[in-house]
Order: sequence, then structure tokens, then C-alpha cells
Amino acid sequence: MRIAQVAPLYEAVPPRLYGGTERVVAHLTDALISLGHQVTLFASAEARTSAALAPVRDQAIRLDPAPLKSDLAAHLSMLHEVRRRAADFDVIHFHTDLIQFPLFEHIAGRTLTTLHGRLDLKDLPEVYRRWRDFPLVSISHEQRRPLPFANWMATVHHGVRADLFAPSAAPRGYLAFLGRISPEKRPDRAIRIAQRIGMPLKIAAKVDKVDEAYFREEIAPMLQDAPQVEFIGEIGDAEKSSFLGGAEALLFPIAWPEPFGLVMIEAMACGAPVVAFNCGSVPEVVEPGVTGFIVEDEEQAAAAVQAARRLDRREIRRRFETRFSATAMAGRYLALYDQLLAQGQPEPPLAAIA
Amino acid sequence: MRIAQVAPLYEAVPPRLYGGTERVVAHLTDALISLGHQVTLFASAEARTSAALAPVRDQAIRLDPAPLKSDLAAHLSMLHEVRRRAADFDVIHFHTDLIQFPLFEHIAGRTLTTLHGRLDLKDLPEVYRRWRDFPLVSISHEQRRPLPFANWMATVHHGVRADLFAPSAAPRGYLAFLGRISPEKRPDRAIRIAQRIGMPLKIAAKVDKVDEAYFREEIAPMLQDAPQVEFIGEIGDAEKSSFLGGAEALLFPIAWPEPFGLVMIEAMACGAPVVAFNCGSVPEVVEPGVTGFIVEDEEQAAAAVQAARRLDRREIRRRFETRFSATAMAGRYLALYDQLLAQGQPEPPLAAIA
Repeated sequence: MRIAQVAPLYEAVPPRLYGGTERVVAHLTDALISLGHQVTLFASAEARTSAALAPVRDQAIRLDPAPLKSDLAAHLSMLHEVRRRAADFDVIHFHTDLIQFPLFEHIAGRTLTTLHGRLDLKDLPEVYRRWRDFPLVSISHEQRRPLPFANWMATVHHGVRADLFAPSAAPRGYLAFLGRISPEKRPDRAIRIAQRIGMPLKIAAKVDKVDEAYFREEIAPMLQDAPQVEFIGEIGDAEKSSFLGGAEALLFPIAWPEPFGLVMIEAMACGAPVVAFNCGSVPEVVEPGVTGFIVEDEEQAAAAVQAARRLDRREIRRRFETRFSATAMAGRYLALYDQLLAQGQPEPPLAAIA
Repeated sequence: MRIAQVAPLYEAVPPRLYGGTERVVAHLTDALISLGHQVTLFASAEARTSAALAPVRDQAIRLDPAPLKSDLAAHLSMLHEVRRRAADFDVIHFHTDLIQFPLFEHIAGRTLTTLHGRLDLKDLPEVYRRWRDFPLVSISHEQRRPLPFANWMATVHHGVRADLFAPSAAPRGYLAFLGRISPEKRPDRAIRIAQRIGMPLKIAAKVDKVDEAYFREEIAPMLQDAPQVEFIGEIGDAEKSSFLGGAEALLFPIAWPEPFGLVMIEAMACGAPVVAFNCGSVPEVVEPGVTGFIVEDEEQAAAAVQAARRLDRREIRRRFETRFSATAMAGRYLALYDQLLAQGQPEPPLAAIA
């Protein structure tokens, strides 16, 4: 099948450090190639991919030092180029939210749009009412809640490349927190849980400019009073296997409707169980008693960590491979692409059947 | 003529306080109505207008307290509605930068797009190369410099409603600075110029969140050492006539390529001369020796203030009325609308002429 993957231009594909959407697009693209398909990736020029790359910007926007840039203009130019080449593809798969709708109305039926962000924004319902013809994919069932009437085709949970993460059977006695320091990710809960059970905690996280005050005023003082908590900053893919593989459990104490939560499946890929708060996509990702536990408060979390240490780490990795590998994700997307193509084909005329 | 005016959704039309684009759209719309045309204004619901209002959002985005909103989605919904009603209009006039391009390709020739912002952004050239059919209006010749190859139809300088501003023949002995506290507006220069000539200066300006550090660290200390400088904060339209009419001169010491600079013509409307630094649109707006002076440094500015006090304030108002009233602006736009319609009309068949 000839497939176009259209990535956002904010981060490299895959991102150098933090970044979810572009990472998933990278892994999906490579998995589709492995399965024998022809894939063209529209992305910024520093993408690392086994697909044919259509480089539509010299570099990703976020880290581009140019003083004045327009993310809207950059995405419009990319989409103009995708449309110019639309006849080259059987299916065009967008990961760019809704900006593509005006350009692809004439072929909406052979596009697929995966929505990667939260959908509880005031202005969104009207857009999804006005552009009804675009088949949409949610990354969790929970993500759909604010837009139940939209043109949902399926939920496809994220996957990541299995070969990037080495499962470890022998954890090294600490808990892990991985991601971003921000109020909705609740690193404060992670610290209190570690204190409650007297286990070391390692926090690998970036601090965005917008979250610097939160870090300085809320988290830094907690770190000073908690000698068993180590803040190691932002880490890249190369360090994740060791960091997550060594953890007794990943703490995922979020307090916002996270549409997916990639770090949960990265932990599972390393054999680490997940102790997650009941929020957003968590109940769809964590299988209690198999790959981790779902909790409502810090007391339950502390108990769950002890239970999680008794889970079979090889079974966690197996569940990851079945449910959340990039290959599993690619298979689910291929089924949707097939469905689109079948719907798009006119019925063969009777003469041809006879 | 049946005309649609499509405003941005960031501020009310006109804005309650600071804001250029939505103010110009408000004044243009009212002037077109006064000249006998049928105008429909697409804008947020709190617009005050004599046109037919098509309210496409319950309120302007910037001051909307909703915690999560999408300016992209809001504008796409508005443009979808404009397109749905496109047959109702002879001409559709956009003030929304470039986001409308994908939706109006089929009728680009009867649209007009006024670009209100600076154009030296990295990602813009590619968009204007790809969408070549949209007739564009610049608000100064200088504004075009980064995009000389774009499909420019004309430059139309901004205008404001003459009846909103009462000209004053008797200034009250102070200099005025009106706008925003920010490094590129150079309020520091205004303060030093006032100190140099020993004249009071009144600063009416808002301080955006992003400029708070600049205000605190650079401007506030200067204010403490300059007792003749008074900082009076943000003012609305109702206070502008008195504030500008009382000024011996408006100081406009900018250090960035401002595409127009509405405050210069507001000052002229009140009879106040303008002392402006040679930057951006300034040479197109200020007529040296008639409506003010153009200077290169603070020393020249100090001398120019003294010379400006001898200019004829009634003549300044007359030049404003001729060149920069909303009616003058509306007349120039009507000529462009006529030109679009003429280009769009098929030649009458010979039989019809005979």
C-alpha cells in the first residue's frame, strides 16, 4: 500500500528528547516499512526514518533558533505539498490535529486523522460539526469524551518500537518518574509515595519555561527534604532502557485527562510495572495485577508498589509486545487503511463479476 | 455593493482597550455603511457595528476566561461559515492573515486580504509562493519588503473615524507616549527626550505579561529618577482625544519595522504633531514640516519637538482628514473592490453592447 504519514513540524521525527506525537509517527512509519509497505513521511528535514522522506521544513520549529517563525504558515505549506502529491498515495494519514481539513475535503474518505491531544477545548466541537467527513482515530476511548458526536472510526492505542527497549528482569531497588515537571503530572505525589514506603525515587524530567516557578516553589523544596529522591533532568531514548528497566515500578500519578501516556508503555517494554492514578487513558493501558495497578490515592499507591514488585516482569514485556509494540499499532492502522480503501472502491459492475 | 468584512477573533471589534487590527476593521466597516454599502461583519459577538453582524464566537478569544480554547479552531469555524455564505457577497475582505487561503481558492479573485502584521517571519515566503491567486493589500509599502514577489494589489494606509477625535488648538504643555511598554517601542527614549528638553511627559501604555520584566528592570527605575514623567497606564478611546489633544507632540521613538503605527494618525486627528524615529512605515505616515518630523536620534528628536510646537495644528487635522480618516480609507478600498469586480466580470457579449 502507498501510505503518506504527515507529522507535526514542532519536534524532530523522532524527537531528540521529550515529545510524544512525533515519536509515535516515527515508530509507526518504520513499522509500516517493515511490514512491506511504501511509506512517504512528510516532516522536518532532520527526521531519521526508513521511509521516503519529504522534507518540508529545514528543521523542526521548537528548537529552530530563527527569531521569528510561523507554525501556522509552516504547516500550511506542508499540507499544500501533501495535496500536490495526493495522487501518489492510497491513504494519507494526518497527525496534525485539524489544520488539514480545509485542504482535503475532496478526498476526505481516503484520509485518516489521528488526534493526539486533549479535546476538551472550547472551540473544538464546532470544527468537528462542520467538517464531518474526515475519519478520526482516538488514541484512547477516554479521549473522545468531549466530542462524542465526531466521526470516530476507531481507537488505536499508541505503540513504540520493541527493539528500542531491553526488558530487565532484575530491577535495582528504586522507583521511577519520567516526563515533565508540571502540576498536572504531580511529581509531588511521586515524592510523597516514595517517602511513605522509604524507597529511593529517581526523577528524569524536563522543566519547561512555563513550569519553572512550579519547580522552584513546589518541587525543589520537597527535594531538599527528601535525600532519597534524585532529580536527574531530561533523558533521551538511549538512557530510557536502563532507567526504566532498573525501576521497581514506574509512578504515573497524573491529575489530568492524559489522552494516552506513552511512558507507561515504555516502562512495560522494559518489564517495569506501572502504578498509575485513575485518570484519563490509564484504565485502558494498565491491566491491574498483570502490568501494574490503578490507584485512587497515595496510600493505595504505596501498597500497590509493594504488590507490583511481585508481578512477573517477563509477562509485562509480553503484554507490551502484544498490545503496545509499534508492530501491533501498525497492524491496527493497516486494518483501518484497508477499510478506507474498501469503502472508497466503487462496487465492481455485474459484468465484471460474471 | 455587498461586502463581507472578516475580522480576527482575538479582540472585540472595536477592541475595548489596546488593539490595532480589530479597530481598523470596525472603522472601515462603519465608513462603508455610511457610504451606502451593504456590509456584513464576521466577528465575535460583542462587536459594536452599524453593519449586519455575523457573530461567530460568543466573545473575543484574548479576554475569554475559558481555561482551554483554540484560536485555530475558532478561526476555521468562522471561515467555514463565511464560505457557506459566500454567494451573498460581491467581495469578501479578510483581515485574518493567511488562514483563509485554503478555504477560498475557488473564489480567490473576489476576495481581498489586508495583511496587518510584520512579514519578516521565516515561514511566510513559502505560503505566499504557493497561494499566488489571493490579491493582497499592504498597510505600508515598507511592510512588503520581506515579500516583494507576493500578489500585491495596493497599499492602503489605515484610517480611523474622524468623529472620534476632537482636534485641539491649545496643547497643555506636555509630551505624550501612547501604546505598549516594550523594548521595540522604546519608552526609554521617550523619557530621555523629555528630560533633555525639560518638558513633562505622560506615558499611557499597557504592560503585557511578557514585558513585565522589562518594565520592572528598565523603565520603572527611569521613572523614579524622572519626576516630570507620569505613567498613567492603559487608556481607552474615550480618553484619547483629551490625552493626545493636550500634547505638544506625540513621541513615537520605535526601533522595529512597525507595519503602520495607528497612534500616529490618532495624534494627527487630535491636531498633535508627531516626532517619530525613521523606522518601518514612519516616512509614509509623517509629512516632515507639516504633520511632524522624522528623526534619527534623541538629539534630533529634542530639536524636532521644539520645531513641531510651531506647526499649524489645524493643518495637521486637515492632513489627517484627507489621508487617514476612515472615510478616506474606505474610498480606497472601494476602488479596489470595484477593480476586483471588473476583473471578475466576463466581457459583455457584442450583441448586448449593440
